[in-house]
Amino acid sequence: ALFTREGIPLEGYYDVLMERGAKSSPDYIRDEILKMNIFNSVFVDCTASANIAEIYGELMAKNISVVTANKIAASSDYENYSYLKDIARKAGVKFLFETNVGAGLPIINTMNSLINSGDKIVKLEAVLSGTLNFIFNTLSEEIPFSKAIEMAVDAQFAEPDPRIDLSGLDVTRKLVILSREAGAVVNQSDVDKKLFIPQKYFDGTLDEFWKNIDEMDASFEERRKELAKEGKKLRFVASYNKGKCEVGLREVESGHPFYDLEGSNNIIMISTERYNEYPMVIKGYGAGASVTAAGVFSDIISIANIR
Amino acid sequence: ALFTREGIPLEGYYDVLMERGAKSSPDYIRDEILKMNIFNSVFVDCTASANIAEIYGELMAKNISVVTANKIAASSDYENYSYLKDIARKAGVKFLFETNVGAGLPIINTMNSLINSGDKIVKLEAVLSGTLNFIFNTLSEEIPFSKAIEMAVDAQFAEPDPRIDLSGLDVTRKLVILSREAGAVVNQSDVDKKLFIPQKYFDGTLDEFWKNIDEMDASFEERRKELAKEGKKLRFVASYNKGKCEVGLREVESGHPFYDLEGSNNIIMISTERYNEYPMVIKGYGAGASVTAAGVFSDIISIANIR
Repeated sequence: ALFTREGIPLEGYYDVLMERGAKSSPDYIRDEILKMNIFNSVFVDCTASANIAEIYGELMAKNISVVTANKIAASSDYENYSYLKDIARKAGVKFLFETNVGAGLPIINTMNSLINSGDKIVKLEAVLSGTLNFIFNTLSEEIPFSKAIEMAVDAQFAEPDPRIDLSGLDVTRKLVILSREAGAVVNQSDVDKKLFIPQKYFDGTLDEFWKNIDEMDASFEERRKELAKEGKKLRFVASYNKGKCEVGLREVESGHPFYDLEGSNNIIMISTERYNEYPMVIKGYGAGASVTAAGVFSDIISIANIR
Repeated sequence: ALFTREGIPLEGYYDVLMERGAKSSPDYIRDEILKMNIFNSVFVDCTASANIAEIYGELMAKNISVVTANKIAASSDYENYSYLKDIARKAGVKFLFETNVGAGLPIINTMNSLINSGDKIVKLEAVLSGTLNFIFNTLSEEIPFSKAIEMAVDAQFAEPDPRIDLSGLDVTRKLVILSREAGAVVNQSDVDKKLFIPQKYFDGTLDEFWKNIDEMDASFEERRKELAKEGKKLRFVASYNKGKCEVGLREVESGHPFYDLEGSNNIIMISTERYNEYPMVIKGYGAGASVTAAGVFSDIISIANIR
């Protein structure tokens, strides 16, 4: 890590870091930041680290806003989530994590605006895994399930360990975050998880997973064929309905908003007291470095109150 | 009008207004507001009046933010629009008009966030008239064009004078506003308008319009039947593409995002440098008192910087 009040020029940053940087740890980072004591500063977390997420509270307590693409804090135990929200409010700083769900899509902000204007979120239905959507869009007679997973990893839609996506863990985290923003007191354990791959594939090592997962190919191909005949597609859907949270595979037919969801896109349907007969729908890239970076930057900008 | 530093209780507001209110005019309103000289105040315009829109500049110059559902200022001559934007920036106040397009849908905010994060709007395609969408969704063998217009007025989707919608004027204004927010220097006269009702119906009085408009019924029914056979629907589409603005009827087929646009909903597809292969899509109620009021309130809240 490298700390300097003068800022670090983009050009040659790596040399400077190697020359003057110190060995880093969350504690060290926290201490150095607090020591610098810069007015109206923002801590930006682009890691997926649980240890880094643990220092948010101390930073916000010392009037430092937090912008994070890291889902761990907002999907952690409800008590911790609620503690962080409280600290932010008390210290008058922001705790923003728009990119936790749908990358650069304006989902959390939109929900917050609806709620701040006195509306109430009644129901959410969403496809929140670009990886899983890519896989179900890629399945074909030629491309079996195991191959589609490989392609998702190669295209960097999936985590290096694709089981984080396949187990529904990633979607569960996102759903917990959305449900909390909608006002529900929920934990990951409260989500009804309807998985589509037997637990044994998740219990072993990653190598074992890759060796064995093609055992699933035949049954997926059978189901795909059956559905194609009926004009249906598979979608991994997260839903929140009056406090109840569920993730699972759903068969959707032509005409359903999820049917035409291309590539690795995400989609969310937000039903509120005002958007009732027809929900509000937001759709687009839900993953990817550039749109996520833009979303993080947009959160930072909103703290500077430029927009 | 009624001015008081103590605020006006909702209960019995009408009696108080009748008792203590003064005859109102834009000049009187402006003078009274400036005289009150309240810190961090917001002027909210829920009229459709051109005269009211004329006082925004003087208010913002005196550090009063403006939130407006009135489209007139933002779609007026580019010079005036740009003058108002400049004044707001110089005075450090906000000039917000999110509800000018798509009512409570987060369209302008989202475009601004994209741009603030360094993205560039390349193309917009949208159905922005709830009225026209309702009319084209309502047309059937039983319901001719003229009857569908009547139904739109009865349901309060259309203005009392439905020609503001039918002439494309309302959509043209919205497109001009979006294109400007996307960075284009355009005026209403720059929009290529492909109208679907001959000019003569707009030249007379409203009474004459209602008397004669059923002359259009036969040709619309013929076109509707033809399209239904091909599995297509009519949509009144506004588009912005690299500086070029156009509004006009388009035939869309099943599978197109505009095809399944229900009722009086609006939809917008935003293509940017980052959202290129697949655009960002936002869909939902684009009109209606409650969602518009919520959007106005949300703009006010964002000035208080609560969200």
